[in-house]
Amino acid sequence: MSENRDRSEAEAQRNKIHNKKMQKIKFARDKLMATKTEEKGLIMVHTGSGKGKSSSGFGMIMRCIAHGMPCAVVQFIKGTWRTGERDFLEKRFQKECQFVVSGEGFTWETQDRERDIAAAQEGWKKAKELIRNSEIKFILLDEINIALRYDYLNVNEIVEFLLHEKPLMTHVVLTGRNAKDELIEAADLVTEMSLIKHPFREGIKAQKGIEF
Amino acid sequence: MSENRDRSEAEAQRNKIHNKKMQKIKFARDKLMATKTEEKGLIMVHTGSGKGKSSSGFGMIMRCIAHGMPCAVVQFIKGTWRTGERDFLEKRFQKECQFVVSGEGFTWETQDRERDIAAAQEGWKKAKELIRNSEIKFILLDEINIALRYDYLNVNEIVEFLLHEKPLMTHVVLTGRNAKDELIEAADLVTEMSLIKHPFREGIKAQKGIEF
Repeated sequence: MSENRDRSEAEAQRNKIHNKKMQKIKFARDKLMATKTEEKGLIMVHTGSGKGKSSSGFGMIMRCIAHGMPCAVVQFIKGTWRTGERDFLEKRFQKECQFVVSGEGFTWETQDRERDIAAAQEGWKKAKELIRNSEIKFILLDEINIALRYDYLNVNEIVEFLLHEKPLMTHVVLTGRNAKDELIEAADLVTEMSLIKHPFREGIKAQKGIEF
Repeated sequence: MSENRDRSEAEAQRNKIHNKKMQKIKFARDKLMATKTEEKGLIMVHTGSGKGKSSSGFGMIMRCIAHGMPCAVVQFIKGTWRTGERDFLEKRFQKECQFVVSGEGFTWETQDRERDIAAAQEGWKKAKELIRNSEIKFILLDEINIALRYDYLNVNEIVEFLLHEKPLMTHVVLTGRNAKDELIEAADLVTEMSLIKHPFREGIKAQKGIEF
């Protein structure tokens, strides 16, 4: 009996300490958040060799659609498998989200440098049109970092455009591993996705819903 | 004239070298991918203090819906703002994706440890039902790592369940910073999202489509 009472008293004490601590965190957080008053369109980069760079871009597109914010995707490297998102957006959300595919596949699949360069430049031309259109609030430039890495696109031109021609309130997300330093420097928000464990190493193949 | 010819010859040479190199990469990649033959449901963890942990989970949910794979979300920490995804899925994809919200908000908002524990445990109970239902192919346990971190849930119980009771082909994604070591150990795929640059530091507030 008394052991039970001791235990429940100890638990009550633990709750009290926890709740006090959380009160303090809330106070500090509210105070901090009150200083965050500015709104502006962000230049965001998702890079690193881990997963989630494109998926989180598409998750943000989903949020935009949910909020009724017009958005667009330019897919710089189509691949042969990354079709789930495209089908989904083209079939169900054609009005909410414009979708442009540029590039025929990963560069080691096409093995045609000239065609890859032409496709990347065509994609960037369309991206500029979409970004200049201030009705579109969010633009995902999916895998553009790969085109930049191979110098199919000029990083300085892209950074200049984003810094000086992007409408103030427009958000742009640029994904792909090996983001160039110039782009990271220019960005407002940079996230690196790192691989800690990957099942490919253990002979598991790419699967529907996960990789594509 | 001859300068132009020199340049175009140099360019042709560059293309040739590039295309050869890409051919080699394709060969190596195809050979590697041929060894990846197994399919199985994965235990995936998105952790780290960077952005994109939940967004990429929701991006994967979008892919599942695109592929007609029945899926589900259990949101362990509702927050007052993370409502875009919920609205979107509940209004438009009720049939494709079951959505369960458990927990009243971030733990520093509720300041009520007992209620938080009860909510987390209720969420886990529902998560187990969803995971046991082998018709559901993909389950996102959003922010469960926060409940684990505060020991509102027992990590060993969760790891045991995932390893021994999850149907073989079901994918489960667990998100949230500070993933416990036991969970990382048990997972097939772990991605860490790290913050390289964040606009909050410069007085930019949380914005629609980006943070919520």
